[in-house]
Amino acid sequence: MRFHTRKWIKPQDLNPNGTLFGGRLLEWIDEEAALYAIIQLENPKTVTKFMSEIDFKSSAKQGDIVEIGIEVIKFGNASLTLKCEVRNKMTRETIISIEKIVMVSLDSEGKVKPHGKTKIEFVKDRLEN
Amino acid sequence: MRFHTRKWIKPQDLNPNGTLFGGRLLEWIDEEAALYAIIQLENPKTVTKFMSEIDFKSSAKQGDIVEIGIEVIKFGNASLTLKCEVRNKMTRETIISIEKIVMVSLDSEGKVKPHGKTKIEFVKDRLEN
Amino acid sequence: MRFHTRKWIKPQDLNPNGTLFGGRLLEWIDEEAALYAIIQLENPKTVTKFMSEIDFKSSAKQGDIVEIGIEVIKFGNASLTLKCEVRNKMTRETIISIEKIVMVSLDSEGKVKPHGKTKIEFVKDRLEN
Amino acid sequence: MRFHTRKWIKPQDLNPNGTLFGGRLLEWIDEEAALYAIIQLENPKTVTKFMSEIDFKSSAKQGDIVEIGIEVIKFGNASLTLKCEVRNKMTRETIISIEKIVMVSLDSEGKVKPHGKTKIEFVKDRLEN
Amino acid sequence: MRFHTRKWIKPQDLNPNGTLFGGRLLEWIDEEAALYAIIQLENPKTVTKFMSEIDFKSSAKQGDIVEIGIEVIKFGNASLTLKCEVRNKMTRETIISIEKIVMVSLDSEGKVKPHGKTKIEFVKDRLEN
Amino acid sequence: MRFHTRKWIKPQDLNPNGTLFGGRLLEWIDEEAALYAIIQLENPKTVTKFMSEIDFKSSAKQGDIVEIGIEVIKFGNASLTLKCEVRNKMTRETIISIEKIVMVSLDSEGKVKPHGKTKIEFVKDRLEN
Repeated sequence: MRFHTRKWIKPQDLNPNGTLFGGRLLEWIDEEAALYAIIQLENPKTVTKFMSEIDFKSSAKQGDIVEIGIEVIKFGNASLTLKCEVRNKMTRETIISIEKIVMVSLDSEGKVKPHGKTKIEFVKDRLEN
Repeated sequence: MRFHTRKWIKPQDLNPNGTLFGGRLLEWIDEEAALYAIIQLENPKTVTKFMSEIDFKSSAKQGDIVEIGIEVIKFGNASLTLKCEVRNKMTRETIISIEKIVMVSLDSEGKVKPHGKTKIEFVKDRLEN
Repeated sequence: MRFHTRKWIKPQDLNPNGTLFGGRLLEWIDEEAALYAIIQLENPKTVTKFMSEIDFKSSAKQGDIVEIGIEVIKFGNASLTLKCEVRNKMTRETIISIEKIVMVSLDSEGKVKPHGKTKIEFVKDRLEN
Repeated sequence: MRFHTRKWIKPQDLNPNGTLFGGRLLEWIDEEAALYAIIQLENPKTVTKFMSEIDFKSSAKQGDIVEIGIEVIKFGNASLTLKCEVRNKMTRETIISIEKIVMVSLDSEGKVKPHGKTKIEFVKDRLEN
Repeated sequence: MRFHTRKWIKPQDLNPNGTLFGGRLLEWIDEEAALYAIIQLENPKTVTKFMSEIDFKSSAKQGDIVEIGIEVIKFGNASLTLKCEVRNKMTRETIISIEKIVMVSLDSEGKVKPHGKTKIEFVKDRLEN
Repeated sequence: MRFHTRKWIKPQDLNPNGTLFGGRLLEWIDEEAALYAIIQLENPKTVTKFMSEIDFKSSAKQGDIVEIGIEVIKFGNASLTLKCEVRNKMTRETIISIEKIVMVSLDSEGKVKPHGKTKIEFVKDRLEN
């Protein structure tokens, strides 16, 4: 799994108990899954269709740095299934993990559209060809 | 199921495709579950521990009004299991539903703490007694 | 008066003195009045035209849960007059109350437009008919 | 009346109809009144106690620049009464005006506290003395 | 230099160490430069092209009030060069200063466009003529 | 240079002209520099002290994905000098680059404090030792 995006937990990310607000974390994960899928499928109209169960394993506090990892599980016809893990950057402790996030490729009218991709591509390789 | 909180979808709630950002919706659901549980368990240190799978059934667009419904499934020893549904206020169409959200009651040091509740109570009744 | 929307006071809702920022509360009230009027008048182009005087009766602190109540005072030709009260969910103490909020119905060019409504309707009844 | 703070209306400041969200405007006004009072009373624990009626005279759209003016009406024993006007910077058209905003000075325990001020002072003069 | 916009430092403006988040301050400066340039050049399509080096001289904490000053350095053909200083309103201590911020005037297609201005104008004078 | 954090440009990140708001971009860069320095220096009290000049080379629009790259230039006694580049993920076009961002390590009272580091370390290696 590759960990890209990092977040620094600021006061505006806390719940009233002073730990990382779970809703904020889910917002970060959904954004990361969307941008990962958009890059792979080369289609900006890619949306979240499904998330498997979510277990909040540990929390995080103000000033902690978290990093969000994404891994491809499966390329479907019009979908891309991802796995996501969020961990504390310093201790590597897992905060949350989601086994399956299904992203779906849409056409300009919002209908499901096959994406024609079958494996991970790197932007570098696309540009060099 | 009782629907309380309502949200008016504004530009800041959209993803770049112009529909309701899924991450924002998850943030709203997590807040609603937390405050519902805090009211029932009378303990502000109540946190989200688990969410069952999430199916994004339909989307919503700028100007739509959504309402968030919560229902109690089970009172555990230190937990409260909720069910959540978000729907479009005008059409009553379901946007998202989550079968199980497990909230857990903590003590001041962040350890699991029995809440002693076994059924839904209304604030009105508490105040009148 | 029916209380729908609930808010959980988070660090980002505080003023620098650590109590609920009055501006944030006014923002929440304006949103609630707008969405209530839009639902009743069935016109998304409904805007706030007037608010009567506002008395900040008590404050609220981080972790408190507030609920926002709205009641119809009068159906005008193109307007809807509402009354609003915000209270602390646990203690039922009033935080703020506004006797009159006048919402006005506009047409697509932003001109005042009669709404043809004379009494409260419930979405449930509209859907069942 | 002196106009200090200026705001540039961005997408995140709009309501779903694409005009300036009234709630955002009230948030800006409340902040401006608070900081004006804090500077005059030299007490950071100064809070909004009352606002007289608010008439939304005109609206504003994305990209407009608004400026917020404040004027002192009266120094009370523990209070400061302000008048506020918000206008469009380019056309000078009034967007909103509020005749009376009463700010109150508190002590460290949140109790009303006389501020000992009777007239407007400029920070420049305080520093030069 | 004239100081217009004032900001009240709230919890959402802090970094995790509890002082003013530098990124927030840069955001405020960029907005102030943009709106100052738009007013002077009478062109809403005015964008930031360059900022000279930035020295963070002192910090600020929750509850402090900062004011942002802008001064014109040079009118170019399609550009406007500004100088910016942010200081603590009560102590007049400088927090940050930027010697040169170059704003550029664009046409509706995003191409550089001469603005035809050579000196500072006041809106009041434009309206009175 | 390694590119970690990625951002998906949403409506709330735009200026009123519909392109990426420069202030938002500076906010993202400042956060990325801070968290990179905190990880390297293993001191959460690390603050931004200086940024060299900033050239806005190209813009970005809603739906674009940008990635933020950081590279170490020099370890000082109490400082860490970084270089930053932000580019469009799909086209690899540079949006902004900053040659020098100086981060400084502070002690608990906010005084400059030597960090004792002389080269880049990876969290993985620290944990394995």
